[in-house]
Amino acid sequence: MSAAHGAGRLAIAGLGPGALAQVTPEVATALQAATDVVGYLPYVERARALLQERGGAAAVAWHASDNRVELARARQALALAAQGRQVVVVSSGDPGVFAMASAVFEAIEQAPTEQAAAWQALDVQVLPGITAMLAAAARAGAPLGHDFCCINLSDNLKPWPVIARRVQLAAEADFAMAFYNPSSRSRPEGFVRLLALLRAHCEPGRLLVFARAVSTPDEALRVCTLAEAMPEMADMRTVVLVGNSSTRQVGRWVYTPRFYGLEGATPASAGSEP
Amino acid sequence: MSAAHGAGRLAIAGLGPGALAQVTPEVATALQAATDVVGYLPYVERARALLQERGGAAAVAWHASDNRVELARARQALALAAQGRQVVVVSSGDPGVFAMASAVFEAIEQAPTEQAAAWQALDVQVLPGITAMLAAAARAGAPLGHDFCCINLSDNLKPWPVIARRVQLAAEADFAMAFYNPSSRSRPEGFVRLLALLRAHCEPGRLLVFARAVSTPDEALRVCTLAEAMPEMADMRTVVLVGNSSTRQVGRWVYTPRFYGLEGATPASAGSEP
Repeated sequence: MSAAHGAGRLAIAGLGPGALAQVTPEVATALQAATDVVGYLPYVERARALLQERGGAAAVAWHASDNRVELARARQALALAAQGRQVVVVSSGDPGVFAMASAVFEAIEQAPTEQAAAWQALDVQVLPGITAMLAAAARAGAPLGHDFCCINLSDNLKPWPVIARRVQLAAEADFAMAFYNPSSRSRPEGFVRLLALLRAHCEPGRLLVFARAVSTPDEALRVCTLAEAMPEMADMRTVVLVGNSSTRQVGRWVYTPRFYGLEGATPASAGSEP
Repeated sequence: MSAAHGAGRLAIAGLGPGALAQVTPEVATALQAATDVVGYLPYVERARALLQERGGAAAVAWHASDNRVELARARQALALAAQGRQVVVVSSGDPGVFAMASAVFEAIEQAPTEQAAAWQALDVQVLPGITAMLAAAARAGAPLGHDFCCINLSDNLKPWPVIARRVQLAAEADFAMAFYNPSSRSRPEGFVRLLALLRAHCEPGRLLVFARAVSTPDEALRVCTLAEAMPEMADMRTVVLVGNSSTRQVGRWVYTPRFYGLEGATPASAGSEP
């Protein structure tokens, strides 16, 4: 099946945290229309599983790559789309949250002269997905139910002092927090250092949620206080949520109230946008 | 159709930004199994439209409420579930991001004595959805492709000084930012004040994205600099994204690079988690 030259398309799609039931119809449709699927091997495998369930896997060319080659992967996808193919780059979660979307636009911006015009003219679409921190938060209750921030601890993206400063300022601002890639092969001490940072700025009773592989058969959820947290609770597939100073538990649920810092306010006395 | 007493269930579901194609299968399944759907009127209408398209709307009791009654809505949903009904509370976007999940857990925690045990024992599930800032970011490119924070400007949730402090600290941390509910009936001057805050802490060329009603027929997207931004660009249905100091444009795309603060690093010289 040859695609008409010049009618190529690139979709950068988020597969969500793992379960097929959390892949949007929009993403599933893009995969069903694809001639080429590009991504990190485990995510390509998830896309293949989706198409096998719905039919259509046989028509697709699969381009699975290893970890740490985001820019090369983006260039490969752009080159295929520029040839007229219907390409889908797959990320876990949402493609715009520490995933492939930024890499694709970096590749477009840095395109070699002979590709630049073609790549900038491509039909590119970013298709959102359920990002890991929101899948994790949903399992725990509503820990991110108030102002929050998210920080990627993946090594090589920024110097450690930048991370340390952001955590300190986030704690001062009393944001709830979500940490992606807490345990990195190249920065294994990273999470030990993060816990030390958090202990310097947050109270011992601060609630943490360790959410591993949410929505997959390997899912594990753990709630504990900052005082109880240990580095080995986080691995490569874990997202770590940190409450703000108001985050609380009711039964097994962890949630952050909608209101903050209002003297005498009760939730019954005021409403908010729906 | 009467539900078996004691087999009640409450799902708190996110409908995404508007399009049916962005409602997860998991949420659609919960709606198809519901006896009762509870929510702010426009969201109940969206749920009804989904069921009408897929069949099953006739079997559901619809409980639509006005704005600003989140806690009452949560109590109504809990009471129905405690009677044994299959209840779905619907929010736009993701239910854990400035939506109904926190309100439900607040209601559980503050339950009157006679309801407390029953409400705490309920089968409650939070079903994530595509939150507005990620739907908006996907339309623009990848503006949230690096560490970011999100802040709700909705009035009555927190005093203005808290917002001002958080924006200042977020700018110092050089987070990208997402602002929900920038234009509020009760705090109409809020967005004027936010722009003034941003101008005090960010450079005039900082990129902003105003994303209105993403994925609906009323969708509008606007990219401009902080110097060009005007209060009337944001209304009740707009989410405002603010880049960090590295956020850039390539063609029509706005994106924030994955790397930050690394001397001499080129994206080609280092990788990151997939």
